Amino acid sequence: MYYDKAENMDRASLESLQLERLKSTLENAKNAPFYKEQLAGINPEDLQSAADITKLPFTTKDDLRSQYPYGMLTRSKDEFVRLHASSGTTGTPTAVFYTQKDLDTWADLMARCMYACGCRKSDVLQNMSGYGLFTGGLGIHYGSERLGMLTVPAGAGNTKRQIKLIRDFNVSVLHIIPSFALYFAQKVEEAGFDTADMPWKIALIGAEPHTEEARRKIEEMMHIKAYNSYGLSEMNGPGVAFECVHQNGMHVWEDAYIAEIIDPTTGEHVKEGEIGELVMTTLTREGMPIIRYRTRDLTRFIPGQCECGRTHRRIDRIAGRADDMMILKGVNIYPMQIEQCLMAMPEVGQNYLIELVTEGITDQLKVKVEVKDQFFVEDMRALQGLQKKIAKNLCNEILITPRVELCQHDSIPKGEGKAVRVVDKREK
Amino acid sequence: MYYDKAENMDRASLESLQLERLKSTLENAKNAPFYKEQLAGINPEDLQSAADITKLPFTTKDDLRSQYPYGMLTRSKDEFVRLHASSGTTGTPTAVFYTQKDLDTWADLMARCMYACGCRKSDVLQNMSGYGLFTGGLGIHYGSERLGMLTVPAGAGNTKRQIKLIRDFNVSVLHIIPSFALYFAQKVEEAGFDTADMPWKIALIGAEPHTEEARRKIEEMMHIKAYNSYGLSEMNGPGVAFECVHQNGMHVWEDAYIAEIIDPTTGEHVKEGEIGELVMTTLTREGMPIIRYRTRDLTRFIPGQCECGRTHRRIDRIAGRADDMMILKGVNIYPMQIEQCLMAMPEVGQNYLIELVTEGITDQLKVKVEVKDQFFVEDMRALQGLQKKIAKNLCNEILITPRVELCQHDSIPKGEGKAVRVVDKREK
Ligand SMILES: [Zn+2]
Ligand SMILES: [Zn+2]
Repeated sequence: MYYDKAENMDRASLESLQLERLKSTLENAKNAPFYKEQLAGINPEDLQSAADITKLPFTTKDDLRSQYPYGMLTRSKDEFVRLHASSGTTGTPTAVFYTQKDLDTWADLMARCMYACGCRKSDVLQNMSGYGLFTGGLGIHYGSERLGMLTVPAGAGNTKRQIKLIRDFNVSVLHIIPSFALYFAQKVEEAGFDTADMPWKIALIGAEPHTEEARRKIEEMMHIKAYNSYGLSEMNGPGVAFECVHQNGMHVWEDAYIAEIIDPTTGEHVKEGEIGELVMTTLTREGMPIIRYRTRDLTRFIPGQCECGRTHRRIDRIAGRADDMMILKGVNIYPMQIEQCLMAMPEVGQNYLIELVTEGITDQLKVKVEVKDQFFVEDMRALQGLQKKIAKNLCNEILITPRVELCQHDSIPKGEGKAVRVVDKREK
Repeated sequence: MYYDKAENMDRASLESLQLERLKSTLENAKNAPFYKEQLAGINPEDLQSAADITKLPFTTKDDLRSQYPYGMLTRSKDEFVRLHASSGTTGTPTAVFYTQKDLDTWADLMARCMYACGCRKSDVLQNMSGYGLFTGGLGIHYGSERLGMLTVPAGAGNTKRQIKLIRDFNVSVLHIIPSFALYFAQKVEEAGFDTADMPWKIALIGAEPHTEEARRKIEEMMHIKAYNSYGLSEMNGPGVAFECVHQNGMHVWEDAYIAEIIDPTTGEHVKEGEIGELVMTTLTREGMPIIRYRTRDLTRFIPGQCECGRTHRRIDRIAGRADDMMILKGVNIYPMQIEQCLMAMPEVGQNYLIELVTEGITDQLKVKVEVKDQFFVEDMRALQGLQKKIAKNLCNEILITPRVELCQHDSIPKGEGKAVRVVDKREK
């Protein structure tokens, strides 16, 4: 069984476990060239509690870049058995290295995630994500095998074969990226199957931030329970936080990570329940520990205790990236706000596109929105009314009135990969 | 260290180990619906030696198809953690299932293969093959981690990124398919690097049959040592047989498999050293044992003892597939014969295409051959001479004179995947 007793430790024991692991992480980190310098003045024994983590310096993506490739490693290169690197061919990439023990720890955490949302040894998981350097593929794969599920390494693409495998092997769990899920559901119907008759029960959706509305749409269209997951390659990959069956936020595995939420400008903790930038520290990684990593992801802690009995705190779904923030006419806008608003409207279809354009001397926000066939009528007045309604709803959310362009079903191009939602055509 | 004492067992001990494992394999196999029937009349205790395997029935690809999906399994579906299936979306596919123990055994065998050709824990391996349902990707990946190599799961395609990773991480071992290797070497040079300056030392090439000449060409162009490997998904995937540093045939791991070579028509063993169809039996697979599997691959046992001291017999590189055999004007032709003949000629470039066409009432063999730039001169007479020479050399080999068409360097299309070498355009 993959339910660790650490998952329902009382908070005091959990926090003292965190303190103990934080200390040994710091000791270990000092073996890495980067942290040897960074932590020079710090004596781990001075930490009185896990909350004292605020005394430690942040680590940023730029730090990882400057240390590329080996500056973050605590031991000889020979001791590592895996690396994942960011895919850029230009600029300095970042790389994450794993010892065999790190891979084991990661697989255990992944298995724990899947167990939490109802996956069991008797389930069959189809991994519909690309493998390779993307941590999502191998991360889910190892976790699924660790839990003992029959794992189908289908990889990305080829919807016809995906459907055949799912039906032939009674696949009960899918790992699928959210923007592909809706497209896939459509393809299943087009192939002549009813999504309600497919053997699947659980979808693990992560890898892309998405709204609660998008999740509900996936659940409805696919007749499946969809569980959100959070991870990033700097913290191993997936498996950092995961929803339990209650679907009310993602439990951060606090015996393996310390999570903080800060104001991205001041670096101070926000008040409990407020949105800010998630900062993560590894507690169980031996090869490449990372202290107070600035994830750039925006979220908040969900107050209160989860019904499942797990004591590990929950984070809310990612409300965008600090870097995705668009500034238009002096207003901060997150693409997620737009998605959330659009997906709440029954007239709106599955796809949309945000464009930032320069017209004359001012910048404008354009939102192309696919409208469901039944609303796309010939009556110009009805369409204009809908256009106005969408513009008004968006304005309520983002405080700017965008140009709304209505499009027919399937007219906005979408691939099988990660959806492109924002195009910035502004003149610099 | 990944050198198993089983690798240099004396033959008598090895054969008695085989007998013992064959008996327990048969006992176990009887738990599978297919073998329960197939082996009904057979008492494992009646086998006096491993050579008595000839008393057992063959298993064919059609058997696997008819048992799809679960008829070959010795235990409950819940006990399996992985499956690989053939990729066809039409017709009945085949599937291979692995328990956790089977994955471990497979990873150990893969690690042994890599160790045999000189890979060590301190090496860095870049896995340039696709992952997913193809066993080559995950097979090499698990073996590489098992041996303790730093494993870069690059996946297929994206040559620019492949080059960057190789240079950034001092990659010393490549897993690359042979037809891609020559294309890749070219791309490396085009990117402005000298292949002699790349950090690589060892290439694991398998997945596609290729000639000794093709291997030498890869070694020359890439400045690398290339090692041949043999495997098939029905026998786990890669890791069935592998070259040691002496590059004189592939050691079949006889503590894990019994290999036989038969006349494909009579089913009898050929004489030692003669070419025939390879037949394989698993000795260490618990979830899905396979007895006397007709691989359809043509090879021979290489007589004598290898200098490396390993006592496990060696098979020669695959000389084609029984199914690839083309019959033209009553003559059996293997595409490999044509490749071998072409690659031995210095004028010939890296690519060629075999076409079977119907002209009037007879079938013809056409061979399109890329010629190296320096031989592709404006002088028609020289070209005609070369054309004749190639036709004559081919005729000596295959006993039929083909139409030879000379093409310029890079004029025959090739993708990044498996090369298509034969196109059959004959009217049925
Ligand atoms: Zn919960
Ligand atoms: Zn040898």
